[in-house]
Amino acid sequence: MNQQLIPYETLKSFTRNVFQTIGCSEADAVLAASVLLAADLRGIDSHGVARLSGYVRLWQTKRIRVNPEIKIIHETPSTATVDGDAGLGLIVAPFSMRLAIEKARQCGTGWVSVCNSNHFGIAGQHAMMALEEDMIGIAMTNASALVAPTFSIERMLGTNPIAVAVPAGDEPPFVADMATTTASNGKLEILQRKGATAPQGWVQDSEGHSSTDAAALKQGGAMLPLGGDYEHGSHKGYALGSIVDIFSAVLSGASYGPWAPPFPAYIPMPENMPGRGLGHFFGAMRIDAFRSADVFKEHMDCWLRRFRSARPAPGHDKVLVPGDPEREMEALRKVQGIPLLQPVVDDLKALAGQLQIPQEIFQ
Amino acid sequence: MNQQLIPYETLKSFTRNVFQTIGCSEADAVLAASVLLAADLRGIDSHGVARLSGYVRLWQTKRIRVNPEIKIIHETPSTATVDGDAGLGLIVAPFSMRLAIEKARQCGTGWVSVCNSNHFGIAGQHAMMALEEDMIGIAMTNASALVAPTFSIERMLGTNPIAVAVPAGDEPPFVADMATTTASNGKLEILQRKGATAPQGWVQDSEGHSSTDAAALKQGGAMLPLGGDYEHGSHKGYALGSIVDIFSAVLSGASYGPWAPPFPAYIPMPENMPGRGLGHFFGAMRIDAFRSADVFKEHMDCWLRRFRSARPAPGHDKVLVPGDPEREMEALRKVQGIPLLQPVVDDLKALAGQLQIPQEIFQ
Repeated sequence: MNQQLIPYETLKSFTRNVFQTIGCSEADAVLAASVLLAADLRGIDSHGVARLSGYVRLWQTKRIRVNPEIKIIHETPSTATVDGDAGLGLIVAPFSMRLAIEKARQCGTGWVSVCNSNHFGIAGQHAMMALEEDMIGIAMTNASALVAPTFSIERMLGTNPIAVAVPAGDEPPFVADMATTTASNGKLEILQRKGATAPQGWVQDSEGHSSTDAAALKQGGAMLPLGGDYEHGSHKGYALGSIVDIFSAVLSGASYGPWAPPFPAYIPMPENMPGRGLGHFFGAMRIDAFRSADVFKEHMDCWLRRFRSARPAPGHDKVLVPGDPEREMEALRKVQGIPLLQPVVDDLKALAGQLQIPQEIFQ
Repeated sequence: MNQQLIPYETLKSFTRNVFQTIGCSEADAVLAASVLLAADLRGIDSHGVARLSGYVRLWQTKRIRVNPEIKIIHETPSTATVDGDAGLGLIVAPFSMRLAIEKARQCGTGWVSVCNSNHFGIAGQHAMMALEEDMIGIAMTNASALVAPTFSIERMLGTNPIAVAVPAGDEPPFVADMATTTASNGKLEILQRKGATAPQGWVQDSEGHSSTDAAALKQGGAMLPLGGDYEHGSHKGYALGSIVDIFSAVLSGASYGPWAPPFPAYIPMPENMPGRGLGHFFGAMRIDAFRSADVFKEHMDCWLRRFRSARPAPGHDKVLVPGDPEREMEALRKVQGIPLLQPVVDDLKALAGQLQIPQEIFQ
């Protein structure tokens, strides 16, 4: 498929322009563009500018407010609950993660549950905010229901990702960022576009039978929790997705389970929603609340080196540590630019036309 | 295989007697017996009295101290690091979880990382201590290395379980308790005893090829992280097991990764251990640090009812929620007794003979 390479700064400036044009303040637009493009930089193309027009459509249907009053509605020394006022998750999430970090400065750890928000880009970006503070960062979010629990044919959970970032010393940090499903929805969309089949264990059909049809969701099917089937531990992936849903939404007052609001603006909102908007959950733990940060980082270096030097299986030259592939991708794309598939370029050009902003960055 | 049904209280009294005979105080022996037998009650037979003689052998080889001085070696308002002084994990863990709960009472949440400990029974038992306090409980532990990272043939991680317990109102609570592997080591041991094969995705052989040999670990093979292989997300199971290892051991000063101390006393300790003993990590979050506990519990009831009433797949009459099977098992076994396989009975009788304590509870 045709693609165009756009320099990172150029694409960020375009994205900032879009957010400013729909009414975001300059500071918010810069932040939202930076958070959104972190996905493109790190190679998670499904969560980056490919979604920009989706965010704009949510604003057009009044499901997103561009000048939200983000409020702390409850707090203790180590916790807070935040009402995102239907703001962009790309703005609400950094606000809430900063709050978790501030709480951790005061009393060792900080934990923030968020309601009334929207999609926040990639979880890893928010967890990584803790790294430069010598803290462990945690981020998770619920999302619209695409995943069937073990032994069910009903979509009850989102792909509900968990991210954990751990600082190291001389080594690059440990950064895990994973959907709690066998495969991310983004990987499934790529197979759909190619007309390719999906591996067994990624999706099931409307009757609950394992399917290799990458488009099974369009025929009433569902994604599967990490594990794939009961024999391979899908009840564990189901439990992990549930924990994310409970921490992000039941704890904060957001909408949960099958009632989580959908990302596509053309899908009607669920009826009888038990809460407001999407929910997120953030955590920050100061390393020196447990032991000396210097000693910890020496041990993390030891941990990372030992795992990277684990004996590789035949056909593999090295063992990776969570965060390695994304960091390598980021280094490459910062220099070479962000590759955009032609349908994404066409979508962004249409968006630019609609908002009457320059589009000459695209061919 | 032959088995005997032993009443729960009888088996607990026998277990308490064993712990007292090797030198535990009465209070510690009662607590250790109760924690150990929680596994048998909840149907996780591999982690209960079947391991009792293993704990005694660790005491005989001086790897466990029966009168430890458990110490808080570092703390902040919301955190603590505990040195278990090589005590029974069955004692060190409840001490540490109580400390997390106390911290949560004071400032909303409490987080305790533990070094210099030993195996602590089932993680779920410790997480559940938070329930009656209207708190969410979290427990995890590292363990001796049996699991190969994705693309590796080396055993680098334990089965490293994660447990999360969430209180509800009228409904029974949500209790997830899972190894971060495809299947638990206990399930694998059951297949070995039966001489049965294991499903694909549970273990690999010494060359890193997927294997159905339930005894593959005895020939240099390894268990596989949740997901099974890369295509099905084993890098996520690997990341989860790593997070447990880092939170439990790198944060506390315990030994981590391939250096985690082995449970069988006949296996020599690893050389050049970077820390002391096994590590655990506990968390307690007060519900009302985020929102009214009553309102939260109403929503948890709604969440639990909605998930239990999700449309079941053909061939299944209902959808379960994490904790349902274990709670049903507990209700049954409290009445009917604990079934012990003959090899476990023989092992306990030999232990009783060795310690010169009554063994007439067994046939």
